[in-house]
Amino acid sequence: MDLGMTPRVKELAAKVRQMVSEEIEPLDAEFEAEVGKHPSGDRFQLTDRQLEILDTLKASARAKGLWNFWLTDSDKGQGLSTVEYAYLAEEMGKVGIAAEVFNCGAPDTGNMEVFERYGSPAHKERWLKPLLNGEIRSAYVMTEPGVASSDATNIALEARETAEGWVLNGEKYWISGAGDPRCAVYIIMAQTDPEAHKHARHSMFVLPADTPGIEILRPMHVFGHDDAPHGHMHLRFTNVHVAPEDLILGRGRGFEVAQGRLGPGRIHHCMRAIGQAEKALELFCKRAMTREAFKKKIVDLGANYDIIANCRMEIEMARLLCLKAAWMMDTQGTRVAQPWISQIKVVAPLMALKVVDEAMQVHGGTGISQDTPLAAMWTKIRTLRFADGPDAVHRRQVARAELRKYSNEKI
Amino acid sequence: MDLGMTPRVKELAAKVRQMVSEEIEPLDAEFEAEVGKHPSGDRFQLTDRQLEILDTLKASARAKGLWNFWLTDSDKGQGLSTVEYAYLAEEMGKVGIAAEVFNCGAPDTGNMEVFERYGSPAHKERWLKPLLNGEIRSAYVMTEPGVASSDATNIALEARETAEGWVLNGEKYWISGAGDPRCAVYIIMAQTDPEAHKHARHSMFVLPADTPGIEILRPMHVFGHDDAPHGHMHLRFTNVHVAPEDLILGRGRGFEVAQGRLGPGRIHHCMRAIGQAEKALELFCKRAMTREAFKKKIVDLGANYDIIANCRMEIEMARLLCLKAAWMMDTQGTRVAQPWISQIKVVAPLMALKVVDEAMQVHGGTGISQDTPLAAMWTKIRTLRFADGPDAVHRRQVARAELRKYSNEKI
Amino acid sequence: MDLGMTPRVKELAAKVRQMVSEEIEPLDAEFEAEVGKHPSGDRFQLTDRQLEILDTLKASARAKGLWNFWLTDSDKGQGLSTVEYAYLAEEMGKVGIAAEVFNCGAPDTGNMEVFERYGSPAHKERWLKPLLNGEIRSAYVMTEPGVASSDATNIALEARETAEGWVLNGEKYWISGAGDPRCAVYIIMAQTDPEAHKHARHSMFVLPADTPGIEILRPMHVFGHDDAPHGHMHLRFTNVHVAPEDLILGRGRGFEVAQGRLGPGRIHHCMRAIGQAEKALELFCKRAMTREAFKKKIVDLGANYDIIANCRMEIEMARLLCLKAAWMMDTQGTRVAQPWISQIKVVAPLMALKVVDEAMQVHGGTGISQDTPLAAMWTKIRTLRFADGPDAVHRRQVARAELRKYSNEKI
Amino acid sequence: MDLGMTPRVKELAAKVRQMVSEEIEPLDAEFEAEVGKHPSGDRFQLTDRQLEILDTLKASARAKGLWNFWLTDSDKGQGLSTVEYAYLAEEMGKVGIAAEVFNCGAPDTGNMEVFERYGSPAHKERWLKPLLNGEIRSAYVMTEPGVASSDATNIALEARETAEGWVLNGEKYWISGAGDPRCAVYIIMAQTDPEAHKHARHSMFVLPADTPGIEILRPMHVFGHDDAPHGHMHLRFTNVHVAPEDLILGRGRGFEVAQGRLGPGRIHHCMRAIGQAEKALELFCKRAMTREAFKKKIVDLGANYDIIANCRMEIEMARLLCLKAAWMMDTQGTRVAQPWISQIKVVAPLMALKVVDEAMQVHGGTGISQDTPLAAMWTKIRTLRFADGPDAVHRRQVARAELRKYSNEKI
Repeated sequence: MDLGMTPRVKELAAKVRQMVSEEIEPLDAEFEAEVGKHPSGDRFQLTDRQLEILDTLKASARAKGLWNFWLTDSDKGQGLSTVEYAYLAEEMGKVGIAAEVFNCGAPDTGNMEVFERYGSPAHKERWLKPLLNGEIRSAYVMTEPGVASSDATNIALEARETAEGWVLNGEKYWISGAGDPRCAVYIIMAQTDPEAHKHARHSMFVLPADTPGIEILRPMHVFGHDDAPHGHMHLRFTNVHVAPEDLILGRGRGFEVAQGRLGPGRIHHCMRAIGQAEKALELFCKRAMTREAFKKKIVDLGANYDIIANCRMEIEMARLLCLKAAWMMDTQGTRVAQPWISQIKVVAPLMALKVVDEAMQVHGGTGISQDTPLAAMWTKIRTLRFADGPDAVHRRQVARAELRKYSNEKI
Repeated sequence: MDLGMTPRVKELAAKVRQMVSEEIEPLDAEFEAEVGKHPSGDRFQLTDRQLEILDTLKASARAKGLWNFWLTDSDKGQGLSTVEYAYLAEEMGKVGIAAEVFNCGAPDTGNMEVFERYGSPAHKERWLKPLLNGEIRSAYVMTEPGVASSDATNIALEARETAEGWVLNGEKYWISGAGDPRCAVYIIMAQTDPEAHKHARHSMFVLPADTPGIEILRPMHVFGHDDAPHGHMHLRFTNVHVAPEDLILGRGRGFEVAQGRLGPGRIHHCMRAIGQAEKALELFCKRAMTREAFKKKIVDLGANYDIIANCRMEIEMARLLCLKAAWMMDTQGTRVAQPWISQIKVVAPLMALKVVDEAMQVHGGTGISQDTPLAAMWTKIRTLRFADGPDAVHRRQVARAELRKYSNEKI
Repeated sequence: MDLGMTPRVKELAAKVRQMVSEEIEPLDAEFEAEVGKHPSGDRFQLTDRQLEILDTLKASARAKGLWNFWLTDSDKGQGLSTVEYAYLAEEMGKVGIAAEVFNCGAPDTGNMEVFERYGSPAHKERWLKPLLNGEIRSAYVMTEPGVASSDATNIALEARETAEGWVLNGEKYWISGAGDPRCAVYIIMAQTDPEAHKHARHSMFVLPADTPGIEILRPMHVFGHDDAPHGHMHLRFTNVHVAPEDLILGRGRGFEVAQGRLGPGRIHHCMRAIGQAEKALELFCKRAMTREAFKKKIVDLGANYDIIANCRMEIEMARLLCLKAAWMMDTQGTRVAQPWISQIKVVAPLMALKVVDEAMQVHGGTGISQDTPLAAMWTKIRTLRFADGPDAVHRRQVARAELRKYSNEKI
Repeated sequence: MDLGMTPRVKELAAKVRQMVSEEIEPLDAEFEAEVGKHPSGDRFQLTDRQLEILDTLKASARAKGLWNFWLTDSDKGQGLSTVEYAYLAEEMGKVGIAAEVFNCGAPDTGNMEVFERYGSPAHKERWLKPLLNGEIRSAYVMTEPGVASSDATNIALEARETAEGWVLNGEKYWISGAGDPRCAVYIIMAQTDPEAHKHARHSMFVLPADTPGIEILRPMHVFGHDDAPHGHMHLRFTNVHVAPEDLILGRGRGFEVAQGRLGPGRIHHCMRAIGQAEKALELFCKRAMTREAFKKKIVDLGANYDIIANCRMEIEMARLLCLKAAWMMDTQGTRVAQPWISQIKVVAPLMALKVVDEAMQVHGGTGISQDTPLAAMWTKIRTLRFADGPDAVHRRQVARAELRKYSNEKI
């Protein structure tokens, strides 16, 4: 169980770290500052400068061979193991737009994986290719406003079969990335067979984003932010037609596709959260060592040594657990690795929230202001505690795996 | 130690609760939605509709005799005890603009207290009177960007004495309310005697907000929000003149004024945070009882019963501690009550954050979206953990009070 | 809601405190050291010196009028309210045998309450009188080895009706106090009607401890200790006869008696636990202020200020919650007060464990040794987390009370 | 960074696990039950049956080649890496006497390491050889009653140089194993040069346990237990002579020896604590799946799924951190590995306490009784939070290592 950095990854990680801090970080704030400056006033239109920033950075990354790291075991990607990728994703987590720059951003990576594994040759040509090139973006359309989406069997958007294929009706929300005008394709889960067994009710479809009948009702806010231009959109589907060949894998197999898709996506979020925790701890230490109160360095006041130690221990443990889950995926496959993925899915966001919270606290007002990245980290990481399944559901999975050791019954 | 509701307060609380839910809550969202709609495009200008909402609600509150509750033991206020006020403030905490509607909002209450206790007759006439009438607003100008303001002796904005009075030079930030054009007066702490004993270095001044030389550099952001039109402004003072009669209490007595001001302010924040926790727990229960997953009500899944019980116990204890601190203030004065104020200052925001966090989690994505008040509660309460002194400083005060029981030495 | 000390209690508390520290504490260790020194070698026989210690102290307490405080609202006791009693019980909690010295020890107080409320005149004469005089002791016989006693409806010891009364068969364990040879009477819960509704299956009986057919199988150990001479015995009942007049309240009403008995007992344990936490925090502070390491007082190292503050805040809150639960009992009765009793039943032991744990830690090895009372406190308080109902059951009660606010359904 | 089980260790672990459960566990309770049954009445004399149990088991272990695993990289041991040993120590932790059976018990392993690294040929012949053969036992004599031993520079037992060698005077306590009559040799830290630099004041000596002038004052109690026959003794040294050749490594180098000794010892305790946590979680699951209350399996009540999941995640993370610390020791040496050893030294006992606590709670009274091993685990693991350095000192080390990344100053 080698969880360390391979020589190959050591070299790549150094390059990624350098590019993140030297090229991407300086432009990240400018990218953010451009939001809302499109002549149309539409916050979900990218400005010319935003497009330029992204194109320049992507070109630079690609030129350096820093591209599509997430695509494990494949000719198209770098053939890195998930363990290896973890070390790189951690670095990318430290700055907002970095993951996209290396073409490793959500939800595209998960969607590309769906196309790669389950897509038809036509899907691969039309969608996978430009996605791998970073030319278009995509969205994964699953969560719905009316039901508890933590239980995916609740998904209710209707897909009715017709002579020409399928017709979709219903609403979806929290569709991340659907605000971006570059988002060209959706992978959408819909209910095709409401009477079937709960794991056979749904099917997964490919849907061009400009298909008629799709309406953006509003952007969902994340702690008051619309996260433009990416966005988390609330969509309405009215008689939206899907071609028969855009059904993925087969009717009633939507749940299967969803499960296959989610493993890697979940762990990638965790890797990046660990990177953010590292960055927050660095900011904590630097602030505490340079600021003074009551005639002492802040680091020498109160419980700060204990807090720093606790942060270090929690980061260290979360990283090791993340690496083990990655190693399980690499060696046993996503299905067997599931309880470990659930473990890190619970652990990493909670840990990162704690570290960021402490870092904010030591900064006082600065910690929640625009003068550090901590405030944005705190609210963004908070969303991971229910995105891709709330903590409670993942804890349940871990417990069931544990209890199965002692029982022949189904648990 | 009667911590219960007096008959008088039972009646007032019912009226406040009713007005908050029936009159204020419905208009609160509209008030927020108006932000940024001023013809000038300036988010820090109130629109006509905003002014109308506030005026209507204030008039209604005043007509009902629901006004200036915070002003204890005084002819000008309601003469309520702090314990009594706690039950009312809790209700006001549940909706954003409610405290202002009853003329009980920060930072005005603290500033009015300064005028009441330490102001000259001229100060009372010019500033206290319109503040008590809710005609103007005010700001308290203390925190500075360059120093750890958790240690108030660090305050460094220079006040130089001249023939005509004082001249101020320096920067301040996180000046809450200074964005609002109705903010007419500042109470400002400045360093007059850098060589004096650390508690005699500072003086407190009254300063009309439109005095020349005051420049708004930028609004500080709270988790990415500018909190317009209230705002938390970063200000620069360049050769700002203060009249000699606008020195409060006396040269070198700024620290004393600051201490006297902070006790009530701190506990008012706590009372409102408890109200928010109550509201969050209510939302938790209602959501968990009506939403289903895995064929069960969410409340019957996972650890939800335990979570609800823990929230109830923590709210109950925090409220009792808050009431005891209030009772100490009422019976022993703010100075003796200090360690209890510090206790509740630590306890209430942490408790409220925990309850709101759980309520968010049970709501899934809805919990962090614009569809519930939880997201705004979470980020706003978070600021209380360092506003008016970070947790660490208050814990230190509590510990020192404890250790003094066993020592004759100065601790 | 007056939760303060009345003048009467202020005086009594001072007397109790003085007697505990001056008379009882010095003899407590000697009492403990006598365990096992009976000539028979039987650890569950009191030595002459043990009897002498108890008799002397009890006589002293009674002579001072410090007796039967727990008996609220009655001619036989002191007529204190539960709130008043709380302040006295806290003092008694600080030393092992103190509660018994003031005739306020468990399980006698609960049993006396059963006799007082539900006993026949003959029961009162034969058992209640000598118990009130501290001449005999008693046991409450409920928990069983074979079933989860957290759900009292599981109780299975059989009581079969015969012509001469009842015949008991089965096992009971964790019968506290049944080891003491002075224990003269049992109150025992048995199943009389297995087919009845779950709350009507059981009946409560009075049983002289020397009735034939009762066998002590073994003492149950508490973290390896037999707690002699008190003991927590595992008993077997073989054809044990009970007279018809020794059925309490009525057939099938055992559950009702049990519920009535438990409220006060539960809160008394909590009051004493709070006293122990106070004592532990005192030991913490004194140790930390006098011991040195790394050239500093220990109190000035690490997070000790924060730990002390947290302990103080948690004690303060638990005490207030305990007093509120007591006030609810006094003003609304045990039944309405139930959710508050459950709250403090969860909160007080957890809080006391935390404070004692921190006090142990600052003492290093001394903290777990025979040189401080901390080790014994830690293990004894730990038992309170399931005695009289485990935390989980009490949390469930609190949550149900909360949810009932929002539902007409039975929860 | 291979943290997995090597094929060699997989095989050894299976053998150890089998021997622990099939041979050792059945005799462990009998060994305990024999304590105090020596004809002399002396609890610190082993009975014939105790000796027989140990001899039989040791012979069996040795015959199977399950011996001296701890001795890494050496001809005398098995040459296992620390990572490999971790998997075996975990198994040994599950039953009280198991570590001794495999000759892997504390404090002998640490003492053997001192002899191996720093001992003279005569030391190796006289003491190391029989220790490696499991024929004698040893004690490590460091902690003192009068000073905070968390700061080893406080150690004050006097070693005065004379013409014939050294003379020791002073007291030591918590000398684990010194109660056992088979304990033949002490390694003792004494102050030789009180005026020297704090890290050069002490020297380490070898001392036959039967040297005149050594007096056992009392056994220290661990939560009321004397842990006979092993014991944790309080010793007085009166003019105890040490031969000049029994000074280890050199005058003033005691601190160095102590540091070298402690790394492996600390991590071994952690490995065993992880094994205990695993066992506790197993007991938790089995109990919760077989016991019923309120018509449900206990596992389906309350927060039990969440608790089980949290336990699994915490065990998993602690094990990984322990393995990483072991790997650091293997690859970088004890000195560089120090911050990682400190990390796991804090993490493992806290984690194990939490898991054991939850397991106790789900067992109700049984959990703290003689009917499960949980009560003994809980109190024993608690001692690890200050043995070999309290948590606070280890957290301080971790924080200092962290801060050093950002500073050139000495921290």
